[in-house]
Amino acid sequence: VSILSISPQEHEARIERARALMREQEIDALVLSGLANLRYFAGFAPHIYVSPTRPWFAVVPLVGEPVALVPEMGHADTAAQSWLGRIETWASPRPHDEGVSDLVRLVKAASTRFGRVGFELGPESRLGMPVADILRLRDLLSSGVEIVDCVPIYRRLRARKSPAEVALIQAATDAAQRAFEAVPSLARQGASESDLHRAFQIEALKAGADQVPYVALATGRGGYDSITRGPRSGKVLRNADVLGLDTGVTVGGYWTDYNRNWAIGTATKTAQEVYERLWNAQAQALEHLRPGMSASSLWRILAEGTTGTDANSVTGRLGHGVGLDYTEPPSLHPLDATILEPGMVIALEPSLTSIHSDGEARFMALEEDILVTETGAALLTKRASASLPII
Amino acid sequence: VSILSISPQEHEARIERARALMREQEIDALVLSGLANLRYFAGFAPHIYVSPTRPWFAVVPLVGEPVALVPEMGHADTAAQSWLGRIETWASPRPHDEGVSDLVRLVKAASTRFGRVGFELGPESRLGMPVADILRLRDLLSSGVEIVDCVPIYRRLRARKSPAEVALIQAATDAAQRAFEAVPSLARQGASESDLHRAFQIEALKAGADQVPYVALATGRGGYDSITRGPRSGKVLRNADVLGLDTGVTVGGYWTDYNRNWAIGTATKTAQEVYERLWNAQAQALEHLRPGMSASSLWRILAEGTTGTDANSVTGRLGHGVGLDYTEPPSLHPLDATILEPGMVIALEPSLTSIHSDGEARFMALEEDILVTETGAALLTKRASASLPII
Repeated sequence: VSILSISPQEHEARIERARALMREQEIDALVLSGLANLRYFAGFAPHIYVSPTRPWFAVVPLVGEPVALVPEMGHADTAAQSWLGRIETWASPRPHDEGVSDLVRLVKAASTRFGRVGFELGPESRLGMPVADILRLRDLLSSGVEIVDCVPIYRRLRARKSPAEVALIQAATDAAQRAFEAVPSLARQGASESDLHRAFQIEALKAGADQVPYVALATGRGGYDSITRGPRSGKVLRNADVLGLDTGVTVGGYWTDYNRNWAIGTATKTAQEVYERLWNAQAQALEHLRPGMSASSLWRILAEGTTGTDANSVTGRLGHGVGLDYTEPPSLHPLDATILEPGMVIALEPSLTSIHSDGEARFMALEEDILVTETGAALLTKRASASLPII
Repeated sequence: VSILSISPQEHEARIERARALMREQEIDALVLSGLANLRYFAGFAPHIYVSPTRPWFAVVPLVGEPVALVPEMGHADTAAQSWLGRIETWASPRPHDEGVSDLVRLVKAASTRFGRVGFELGPESRLGMPVADILRLRDLLSSGVEIVDCVPIYRRLRARKSPAEVALIQAATDAAQRAFEAVPSLARQGASESDLHRAFQIEALKAGADQVPYVALATGRGGYDSITRGPRSGKVLRNADVLGLDTGVTVGGYWTDYNRNWAIGTATKTAQEVYERLWNAQAQALEHLRPGMSASSLWRILAEGTTGTDANSVTGRLGHGVGLDYTEPPSLHPLDATILEPGMVIALEPSLTSIHSDGEARFMALEEDILVTETGAALLTKRASASLPII
């Protein structure tokens, strides 16, 4: 067992916190099928979740023992990973009934008080089972059991990270840091985006990442057009390009999410200026962030820091939560009123579109991950240099 | 542009084949949100799909131009990847309306003939948007437009792979092969499962994999307990262990899926016998597989090959399709009557649970990927050795 792991006691405490919210919201049971929630509540994350053939479930009743309900072939792996003592299985594949009749039985047994069962339905969720199956389950449950959204419950629980969770995010962050440090020796003029993409993954794995599911990489003269794109095999680095590299690295299921930028050979004046604006906006956010502040207030600091007074010209969001999902609520966005609390891990991600000397628009983003503390913000990332580094 | 890619002409042909099935099934439009289908129909796969915050859509109407509907920040990446000329965006994040009102408009405009629109609802599907959003969309469409399942359409289209698709699967297979060939130099006694897990990912990337999203790895004396588990950090290789390593490697979005087994130091007699049974069962399948045969008939060859005449003692399935999803229909299972057709790529995955000399049950699987041809089966994998290799 790794030192970096979540204890059974911490898992049990999660269940108790969930139950308090379930009582408040009059929900008899949670049925979880998304990968992050299986890990959070049941302490197992089926490695084979990449296959859409078989769903995997955890059922958390208000009273009584939580249950893992998994395909038969997954029993050994679930038993090895999970803190749960109760694991049920069905003979999968069974396309006409992939766990649905078992779920009906478990949900009916649990739904004795409120007649409401929570599934992952709301914003920023993805269900880990076919929609046709949840609709059929709803029909089978119809007599007196209603399906309701449980996103508000897990969102509330998962927002504040424990020290053990922060340690896992820190480990992922440190692995990414070592991969970022290797970039100057890899990103020479003439190197292709695809080669860099592979090389970065290799460096992060060497540095201790469990997996490197996300590496976005974009290049362009003085800036790029997107920070979320994959590599283009034919595109090579040229003098005066800016290389932006954004990553998602995981350790123990927890993500880190931050990026770095480099100028290749020469940095254009506009690129340098844009980079420094982004860096200074982050400095403002790091200085002024306090628990009790809203996500929209933090957005405003970053927006004004990058644009001067013209915050309304900023589109999209300028950061978000990070944890068991690569991106989690809250959004640093004018419409998100979430109050920042100690224990939240937030990616500060100011970005700017600017017009360069050739008349073309270029984009740049700069991202750091922080932990909200009792008094302010603590960086999890080793902060990027104050001026655009040149390779 | 890579030589290994899907041409705009092939994408257009996919749309025309889809439309023929849509007419048959009286469906006015397909709305696709799953990663594999976005790639298959619209030729783009958002790299940032790992984030559940923003959904991504492609709408394929029976008549008129297909549309990519994506978050604003994804426009540049979509335009660079997709063959589609029509890309619409919305200002995301917008949790109260993540593309839903735009979808309603596009679907209403398309639903003029049958009043039916297809979404990914059925077996082995995962929707790429929150369930609450599809339910709301259904309410907004209510006057005369019904939401129906489009899984049968894309399943039919994606079952037979084109030469370009087979070439991508072959490239992924070849990268995995080189990583498997490196295992004997990595998997010494005392090496930990976690170290091997990382080392295998690195070798596959070095060999040309775009990504290595899946590496399952299990060890145990004479066999293992699961072929779908992730590594255990504290578990080290010991003499007489069998190491089973199963992978999913991607190139251009297409997967390969096969495994290899090795005995560490010494092979127990039972482990050798089990391995040879699995290998011989595959030899039977490779010899007798013909297009026109059913998936269940192929299952029977593998089941009888491993158990003798006791095929009914076999649980689960013994193989499956491979393509844009890590596992796809059909299942090699007694209840799957799918007829095998030229162009299908199938993982032949016989497995056996056996009782060893210590009285304990152990599991072993052996997997190869084949292409169904006009006359039989062509191996995509370089076949495993006929007897259990010893490291």
